[in-house]
Amino acid sequence: GVLGSGDFARSLAVRLVCSGFRVVVGSRNPKRKASLFPAAAEVTFQAEAVKKADVIFVAIFREHYSTLCDLADVLVGKILVDVSNNTEINHHKESNAEYLASLFPACTVVKGFNVVSAWTLQSGARDGNKQVLICSNNQEAKRTVAEIAQVMGFTPVDMGCMSSACEIENIPLRLLPAWKIPIFLALGLFLCFFTYNLIRQVIHPYIREQKNKLYKIPIEVVNTTLPCVSYVMLSLVYLPGVLAACSQLYYGTKYRRFPDWLDQWLQHRKQIGLLSFFCAALHAVYSLCLPMRRSHRYLLIETAVKQAVEKKMTIWVEEEVWRMEIYISVGIIALGLLSLLAITSLPSIANSLNWREFSFIQ
Amino acid sequence: GVLGSGDFARSLAVRLVCSGFRVVVGSRNPKRKASLFPAAAEVTFQAEAVKKADVIFVAIFREHYSTLCDLADVLVGKILVDVSNNTEINHHKESNAEYLASLFPACTVVKGFNVVSAWTLQSGARDGNKQVLICSNNQEAKRTVAEIAQVMGFTPVDMGCMSSACEIENIPLRLLPAWKIPIFLALGLFLCFFTYNLIRQVIHPYIREQKNKLYKIPIEVVNTTLPCVSYVMLSLVYLPGVLAACSQLYYGTKYRRFPDWLDQWLQHRKQIGLLSFFCAALHAVYSLCLPMRRSHRYLLIETAVKQAVEKKMTIWVEEEVWRMEIYISVGIIALGLLSLLAITSLPSIANSLNWREFSFIQ
Amino acid sequence: GVLGSGDFARSLAVRLVCSGFRVVVGSRNPKRKASLFPAAAEVTFQAEAVKKADVIFVAIFREHYSTLCDLADVLVGKILVDVSNNTEINHHKESNAEYLASLFPACTVVKGFNVVSAWTLQSGARDGNKQVLICSNNQEAKRTVAEIAQVMGFTPVDMGCMSSACEIENIPLRLLPAWKIPIFLALGLFLCFFTYNLIRQVIHPYIREQKNKLYKIPIEVVNTTLPCVSYVMLSLVYLPGVLAACSQLYYGTKYRRFPDWLDQWLQHRKQIGLLSFFCAALHAVYSLCLPMRRSHRYLLIETAVKQAVEKKMTIWVEEEVWRMEIYISVGIIALGLLSLLAITSLPSIANSLNWREFSFIQ
Repeated sequence: GVLGSGDFARSLAVRLVCSGFRVVVGSRNPKRKASLFPAAAEVTFQAEAVKKADVIFVAIFREHYSTLCDLADVLVGKILVDVSNNTEINHHKESNAEYLASLFPACTVVKGFNVVSAWTLQSGARDGNKQVLICSNNQEAKRTVAEIAQVMGFTPVDMGCMSSACEIENIPLRLLPAWKIPIFLALGLFLCFFTYNLIRQVIHPYIREQKNKLYKIPIEVVNTTLPCVSYVMLSLVYLPGVLAACSQLYYGTKYRRFPDWLDQWLQHRKQIGLLSFFCAALHAVYSLCLPMRRSHRYLLIETAVKQAVEKKMTIWVEEEVWRMEIYISVGIIALGLLSLLAITSLPSIANSLNWREFSFIQ
Repeated sequence: GVLGSGDFARSLAVRLVCSGFRVVVGSRNPKRKASLFPAAAEVTFQAEAVKKADVIFVAIFREHYSTLCDLADVLVGKILVDVSNNTEINHHKESNAEYLASLFPACTVVKGFNVVSAWTLQSGARDGNKQVLICSNNQEAKRTVAEIAQVMGFTPVDMGCMSSACEIENIPLRLLPAWKIPIFLALGLFLCFFTYNLIRQVIHPYIREQKNKLYKIPIEVVNTTLPCVSYVMLSLVYLPGVLAACSQLYYGTKYRRFPDWLDQWLQHRKQIGLLSFFCAALHAVYSLCLPMRRSHRYLLIETAVKQAVEKKMTIWVEEEVWRMEIYISVGIIALGLLSLLAITSLPSIANSLNWREFSFIQ
Repeated sequence: GVLGSGDFARSLAVRLVCSGFRVVVGSRNPKRKASLFPAAAEVTFQAEAVKKADVIFVAIFREHYSTLCDLADVLVGKILVDVSNNTEINHHKESNAEYLASLFPACTVVKGFNVVSAWTLQSGARDGNKQVLICSNNQEAKRTVAEIAQVMGFTPVDMGCMSSACEIENIPLRLLPAWKIPIFLALGLFLCFFTYNLIRQVIHPYIREQKNKLYKIPIEVVNTTLPCVSYVMLSLVYLPGVLAACSQLYYGTKYRRFPDWLDQWLQHRKQIGLLSFFCAALHAVYSLCLPMRRSHRYLLIETAVKQAVEKKMTIWVEEEVWRMEIYISVGIIALGLLSLLAITSLPSIANSLNWREFSFIQ
């Protein structure tokens, strides 16, 4: 059974019908709404629908839960699936599912399907996250809903008892929360270093020697900026650990909570590290592209022609040769090690390591 | 207990013995077959074996299930594990496990282990997929079989009730089904563009100016072909979404099913996108290799010598310098963004994103 | 309830308090130890603590388990969680959890949380492995502990019945066991080939022609060494399969166990293959860096100037051009295929393939 006639209710009905279930839709105005649902789904009055169904998806807003109170008698003993979402994180004091359970103490309430979008429901779980998080205080009801999710093509994940409902309801609202600060940090650092390098490599030579080196902006200036950002970010990964250790030494205890800013910083280390790796990898690609540039070719030919005309033969500078060889080989080794770190932060790799192995690699 | 003496039955017996279980093998001709099984497994007549075992693996073909009907009395209350596979997808109307359950209503039938090859069984689950998909209508029996699978070194996955048996039986038969069309598409596009570029870069100059540029085939022609394939495939990823939206606008409803060809196309978008990324990445590697080529070096020296002999100094073409700088820097950024898309399509990354985050990145 | 006052007990108490549980700590000297625990946790005598708690974490060493025997009466019917680790793999005949269960037959013992470090407990599961492996003979107790783990922010994994306890206790002790031999093998091969190439490319020209080519060491010598290591390792991946097939042909049976050395070798194939891929990828990066080197530039200019001075124009060697084009294009294709192999060995990708698909790609 599905109660409601919104977008989500309709997608749910479409998907349930496609998965071979018999679906009854309960609406307050079944005649007007019937055309919105697939033909195979029976659309009828709410009380009628509830009587016919064992598992009832409550696809209506939290604000309208109380309108269901008239159905309390027919709902006794049924499994109610709360699929609702909030518009803000921790909007209400108790989760929607717990509120629903408090309204209908004679029903078994299961939280689930809220992490799935209407679009995914309708078109099937093709890519992205196929997990449906489910929680309930009743094991049997949870198992029933999990099997429905499985037949619909999703991967049910048992999240324990009803107290997890709040957490589950907050999931669809978050948007890469741990990445915001690190990304703004990286952009800020990039802007600073870019400005500095632009002045140093382009504007200064132009003012002092009237040389037009604007062509350096898209590649060379970016390429000298990236490793600076990468270095600073990498140091920001290791610095909070040192500060935390100092704080522990200073207070003489390991069990004092760190100040909030340090705690936040410690929590963002992984994201900062991955952005540092991303900058380093981009720097590697930019550097590898240097000899492909037309300007590189022209400068080479210019030098060769100049030397040939002046009949000067030896241009081999041992020191410069060595500096470049060492730069490059150290750079490759550093990139290889950072790649290893980045690979171990993939969830599926991290899950196959124990903590000794993980900290050994880190 | 294991019923049967084929390859799978023997591998199963070997593995069970190695994992520390006591194994009884039931065969119609125990004397002749005993030598095929490990010494620690007791080989005896079928009825004898069934009596001694609680969990019985039925490792015989579906066609011979009916020969077990004589054992119906001794089988009462036992757990039968159906490990059979079909030779064609959806060959029979009902799955093998459901057929077995209908023959022996007094037994508990569990479907499982069919996704494992005889070779993996025998040598242990070293790499590849270690999952054993299990389904049954009886929770207790399912749990028992899951624990056996765990002790044998596999990861049991609960697939719900018996109606999933058909799906589980189809899994070992599929061979990258979603990849066939995209791969042929990519190969077809590659051939077309390769022919065009071959004519343009090698055959045309040869016919018109008698210049031998055959050396361009392995790298330069391939390198101009790859981005074309990548572009066309990328547009094929986004086109069906536009067509689907148009179709929805035209029919004025979101709940009409798309025509089959559009539906298929929408389902293959991820694979087409990954192949597009693969071509783009190959193009990047080919481009980076350009300055390593001997021909690049010879052409450079040739130009330098020619200019030196003619005492012509300035060859700097500002426009060409800029064009190349912009090409390269846009290419790097595009590749970086495509990499991000490719990484989020890894199952373990996708599972840690909610749908808002996933569609934000996409 | 938490019994014990070591590092792990304190971290456990901190985490439980932070997750909103009411915590009672049992200590033999509650007054002295109280300051070590967070203020929200009640620290009292062991017998007192046991009476107040339903789930009791036994955070003391196996050697001191017998000291709890005085509490046997109050422990009746409680759930005991064994969080202990060993210092050596398979140190004792029976696992710690089984030993604890044999001491207190009236309690339900659950093994769990031992794979988590004290540090992770305290600071929360931020990165690395969030899985908590749990096993017990009692389903209900296992579920209770699993839900506690979930609320604490970990991912509980059901490992079946108590016989898995030994395996779970061994996990934190291993340190990349399958990687040791392959890594030493790769280092050994690298050293051999590096010495050979050093003699051939640097020492020999120095002795015979007094040419100083020391600058070749950091990049060129390493770059000729890496593909040799990669080739030999790749052949070591496929050789044991051939040997195994030969052994099967020789003995005329598929069911004879392979000799131990061959078995070990077969088990390390995946790691050897990944290291071979790593060497090949490093070789690709080193090769791409070749044209960036200052020495490359100087040699180019030198040749150009020499030719210009001698007025010699043609230096195009068709054979060398072709050789390099073919080298590079074959190298790129080989690297592309190896990348495909490496990607399919990611656990999350391997789990989405069936064995036919996996062996098709391999």
